[in-house]
Order: sequence, then C-alpha cells, then structure tokens
Amino acid sequence: MRKIKLTLAYDGTHFSGWQSQRHERTVQHAVETALAEIHKHPVALVGAGRTDAGVHATGQVAHFETDHPSLSGARFTDALNASLPHDVRVLESAEADPDFHARFKARRRVYRYYIYNTPIGLPHLRRYVWRVRRPLDLDALNRFAGLLVGDHDFTSFASALDPTENKVRTIGSSCFFRSGDLAVYQIAGISFLWKMVRTIVGTIIDCVVSGKDEAEFRRILLARDRGQAGPTAPARGLFLERVSYE
Amino acid sequence: MRKIKLTLAYDGTHFSGWQSQRHERTVQHAVETALAEIHKHPVALVGAGRTDAGVHATGQVAHFETDHPSLSGARFTDALNASLPHDVRVLESAEADPDFHARFKARRRVYRYYIYNTPIGLPHLRRYVWRVRRPLDLDALNRFAGLLVGDHDFTSFASALDPTENKVRTIGSSCFFRSGDLAVYQIAGISFLWKMVRTIVGTIIDCVVSGKDEAEFRRILLARDRGQAGPTAPARGLFLERVSYE
Repeated sequence: MRKIKLTLAYDGTHFSGWQSQRHERTVQHAVETALAEIHKHPVALVGAGRTDAGVHATGQVAHFETDHPSLSGARFTDALNASLPHDVRVLESAEADPDFHARFKARRRVYRYYIYNTPIGLPHLRRYVWRVRRPLDLDALNRFAGLLVGDHDFTSFASALDPTENKVRTIGSSCFFRSGDLAVYQIAGISFLWKMVRTIVGTIIDCVVSGKDEAEFRRILLARDRGQAGPTAPARGLFLERVSYE
Repeated sequence: MRKIKLTLAYDGTHFSGWQSQRHERTVQHAVETALAEIHKHPVALVGAGRTDAGVHATGQVAHFETDHPSLSGARFTDALNASLPHDVRVLESAEADPDFHARFKARRRVYRYYIYNTPIGLPHLRRYVWRVRRPLDLDALNRFAGLLVGDHDFTSFASALDPTENKVRTIGSSCFFRSGDLAVYQIAGISFLWKMVRTIVGTIIDCVVSGKDEAEFRRILLARDRGQAGPTAPARGLFLERVSYE
C-alpha cells in the first residue's frame, strides 16, 4: 500500500461540513466517492481539519492509502478532479511517507476569516464573507487578537459540545489585516477546538462594537466559560487556509 | 415626478440577464418588483446595459421616475435593499436631472472579463471566471487587444442576431492586465453590440492558443462576418464594471 497526500480546496456553501454523516452531503464523502470510483472498492480518507457546515477551504490536507496498480501520486489530481463535483477540487496530490498522517502529523493549521466591512454587501462575495456594516478599526481589533498568542485554555471560545478534555491550545499568530474593503483575521496554531475561530471572531467584533476593553476580553478568556464570550461568527466567512507538516 | 439614478451590483449566475422577460428571473424584474412594493404601483426601470444571462455587474446604472411622497434620493438604497434578493444590491441612489437617461446619456461603459489562468480551478471563483488551463502570455494577448482601440465595424464580433444597423463602435481602451492568477481583460467604449465583449475575448484567446498573428486578427475584424471570429467566451467571466455620464 502507498500513502497519498491530497491538498484540497472547496466551497463549503452546499456541504454539511467535512466529515461523513449519513444522508448529508459532505466533502469527505464526495472525495471518498471519487476514490471508490477510481479504485473499484471503498477507500477511507483522513482530513487534517474537520471543517463545519458552510466553512470553506483553500488548503485542506487529507491522506488515503492506495493499492492502485498504475496511478502515480501526482496523477491522482486529474483522476479525482474528473469525477469530483465542481465545488471541490484537488489542488495537488503526491506520494507521502508511510508514517504520514494528515491529522496527527499536522504541525500548523492556518485559518482566515473574511469580514466585508462596508455598508452594502457585494453580491459576489455573499457566500464567502461576513458583512459588518460598522467601520472597524484595525488597531482596535488587533489589541484583542494579540492577546490570544501563546498557550491558553480556550474553553470560553469552544463549543460547549466540544468533547476534548484538554482545552489548552497554542496559538502562534493572531492578527487582522486589511485587503481592500475586507478585514481579514488570520490565526495559526497547532490545532483548534470546535468553533473556536468563529467564536474568537464573534467575540472580538462584539468587544470592539460594544466598547469593551482588553481587561474584559482577558476576563472572558480566563473565565473558561463559553457563556462569557460573544456570538459565533457565521461559517461562511471562515477558510481553512493551509496545513503544514514537519 | 423626480428622477432617481441607481448604481447596482448583481451576481448574474441565477438571473436570465437584465431585461424583463415573461416567466424568467431577471434583474430588471427583481428591481421593478421592489420598486412596485415601495410605490404601491408599477414603476418602470431603465438600465444602461442589457447584460445577458449569467453576466455580472458591479456598476450597472439604471433610472426610474418616482412620485414617492417622502423618500429622498439617497434613501432608496436602503428601502430597495430591504426587499431585493441577496444576489442584487443597490450600491447607491441619488436624485438625477430631469433629462438624465441611464441608457442614452451614458458616455462610457467599462466591462471586465476575468480569466482564471491555472491548471486547476478554485471552487470559490467558479461562477465568476472562465478558466483557461494553458498559460497565457499577457503581451501576446495585448498585441491583439490593442488593435481594437478606435472606430471599427464590429460585425465580426457581434451576435448574428444583433438588430443594430450601424455596427461601428468606438473603443477607448482595450487591454489585459494580470491580478494574481487572473488575466483580466478591460474594455471601455461608448456602447457595445450584443455579445461583443465575450466574442472579442473568445477570439483573442483562440488566436493566442492557435498561434494566429495580428494580420489574421485584423482580417477577422475587417471581414464583417461573425463566422470568421472565434467562439463566444462564457457569460460567467463578464462583469459590467461601471457606466459614466457627462
């Protein structure tokens, strides 16, 4: 058996997230269906990040094991794209080491959250941004965003349904930058809790808009109580940007 | 009666073009429906450019006459957006001179055509670009594009069904520029024939890909025969970018 690493992009709008669920259209299921067609038997796919319904990716990573007699690692790109639906594309495929694991060997995950900061939405962006009418001051946003760098218990920013016991996560970078009318939040870490990025974005926007200060934001973080944080920002603004390995 | 000028953006994907047609979902009909709701009687809308099915706009201009007792010109923006579907937005509304006419007084129309020039499509762009796998040389594209500046009979580049008698049009600028992986064609002129921009793009790409030279392109233009030109590029890459008035 050879191991193949895939880099994937998808438009999450019409997917019920990454992970296969009965009767739901998921990205994992779409790719596994294409893999089964090529192999003439079921093939299991493991993804680096289990993105939620409506969340997008430009650099999701996944792996599978193959007994295909002829296709080289790189050839899986075209073979899969030929049968995948148009809202998911394989950007790259390559042979990986036998001990490669898309999820457990990932050393850095980068997410981006796109906020379209204008009074009126642009129809072409509506599936890919969260529109916030009120003008946002980037420096104000970054005063909060910067507080998350380092090791913290992110219980306050995780879904109450997240099953992980240890909720300490290490954040390497957390900042907003501007790109035209977009305010883009980029956060990088080894791994994330369920709904963590969206709750961070929703809480930071809430703090800026309602005039809360950094002490209040720090208090929310230390409370380890989801009830203290702000609303979860909509899924459509979130992109899994890339995943890096050693 | 006051005259109101609207600037509109729309995602053309799910519209059968601008112009009202029986049983079809059109942009004109969507805006006229919203206007009728506000006015409690039918209101006719005149657009600057009758974009085709699937063609987008970020700066379409339109006008209507209003007898509304209270709404100021600027207030129509929010009033219309409150009832318009999400794939069309009013970006601006303002009172116009009584002799303003969105179509007949337009002095410059700017179209952009977006070509995503990569081996693999990005799912999020699929509704808004034409993907051309083969790497395109911008200088080569511009050698053809530049030949269209000035006054020419564009019969070769118009739909055979275009009803206009005089097919001479004045092109102010015509060029390709690069923006990341996108090759963007921008063309500006007073007015355009039916399917003219898409046929120009399709023909230029065809010439570059099949190694035709400028003499051949000039021959196509002078032939005044649609049969001599290349294929019509897909609607989804075309945007009506803006319309200017004196």
